[in-house]
Amino acid sequence: MKTNIKAFVFDVYGTLFDVHSVVERCNQLFPGKGEKISKTWREKQLEYANLREIMGNYETFFSITKDSLRYAVTKHGEELSESSEDTLIIEYLRLTVYEEVKEVLRKLEHKQLAVFSNGSHDMLDPLIDQSILHNTFNQVISVDEIKVFKPAPGAYDYAAKKLKVKPEEVLFMSSNGWDISGAKNYGFHTAWINRKELPVEGLNLIPDKTYKDLSGILEWID
Amino acid sequence: MKTNIKAFVFDVYGTLFDVHSVVERCNQLFPGKGEKISKTWREKQLEYANLREIMGNYETFFSITKDSLRYAVTKHGEELSESSEDTLIIEYLRLTVYEEVKEVLRKLEHKQLAVFSNGSHDMLDPLIDQSILHNTFNQVISVDEIKVFKPAPGAYDYAAKKLKVKPEEVLFMSSNGWDISGAKNYGFHTAWINRKELPVEGLNLIPDKTYKDLSGILEWID
Repeated sequence: MKTNIKAFVFDVYGTLFDVHSVVERCNQLFPGKGEKISKTWREKQLEYANLREIMGNYETFFSITKDSLRYAVTKHGEELSESSEDTLIIEYLRLTVYEEVKEVLRKLEHKQLAVFSNGSHDMLDPLIDQSILHNTFNQVISVDEIKVFKPAPGAYDYAAKKLKVKPEEVLFMSSNGWDISGAKNYGFHTAWINRKELPVEGLNLIPDKTYKDLSGILEWID
Repeated sequence: MKTNIKAFVFDVYGTLFDVHSVVERCNQLFPGKGEKISKTWREKQLEYANLREIMGNYETFFSITKDSLRYAVTKHGEELSESSEDTLIIEYLRLTVYEEVKEVLRKLEHKQLAVFSNGSHDMLDPLIDQSILHNTFNQVISVDEIKVFKPAPGAYDYAAKKLKVKPEEVLFMSSNGWDISGAKNYGFHTAWINRKELPVEGLNLIPDKTYKDLSGILEWID
């Protein structure tokens, strides 16, 4: 495929890193309710980032992650001790990388590679550093640097400027439909890593390509 | 309670009108999957309004309601025929009013009463007109008039200006935690109609009052 991609830019949670271990830990701490709690946790984490963006009321994603955890545990009728909170939050700092990721990124190592996440550096940096992906990326970009959450156009614009490329020179990968929609809305090329085989979001912003895992993006190498 | 409330402003869906009949209709059309489909439908309806607000990509709530329905049906492995779509959408135009609402509003009839919704007039007006609440409100305000969704501060500001009152002269009622958070963030007095006994949202914006149904707000009459 003929492309003019100068930067390969990756979302983090659910895209490069599997958040499943958080679900497992939830199950250990709250037997029988782990699935429900972690589902609500993730939903509220995303919702709170959106709501804070709309309300003009920014907090770091780390802080939002804690707030949404507390909500989720309370909603499902449990209590969150300080040690349980610590245990679950620490899990976010040592997620595992999806199976195919390391090999795909190795084949792209001559390209400009970056991660671009709603996560703040206090979450992102320890996570990447402890993983097999340390030293893989030219840049680790967090929206926290400008305090504007994806999918606001200004967030993607910041990443493009930091990478010193035009929007159409970026291929952006995410497993999150809303994130792909936001990137497409701004003007990036988009590859949706649709790990859960979900329908395309009803936002009238179709991803350029959809793959079941990250291997598919290798066709974007010139 | 000593207050200086000049306008009582109500959210619509879930606050005055029960959306349960939509769930029932979903169950008739998609036996065994109605609950799941309607849950995804409502979640995506709210998410798409948020995402479009953030992306600067406004569509009417009526249009979003259709887009999110299509997503929900597809996600749960069903097909949405044109007639099923019409049946479900029409249901939104004839929701029933919660039991206590009529009597509470009757006791407030000497006050300025308004509804203020993310719904567009093509949804709101037919719904209110066919209900026992027709002729109850001094104003039916839709965010569609300025194309800014709640919980953006500008949406609540528009409502206050249209009602010709100061923010602190408004008591705003909603069953949606995010909507109460947005109203509080802007500066309205807030009464959360917590029909589902949910925890307070983790957004650091505590409602002034929480009631299990609308009857509680009568204590705000001077």
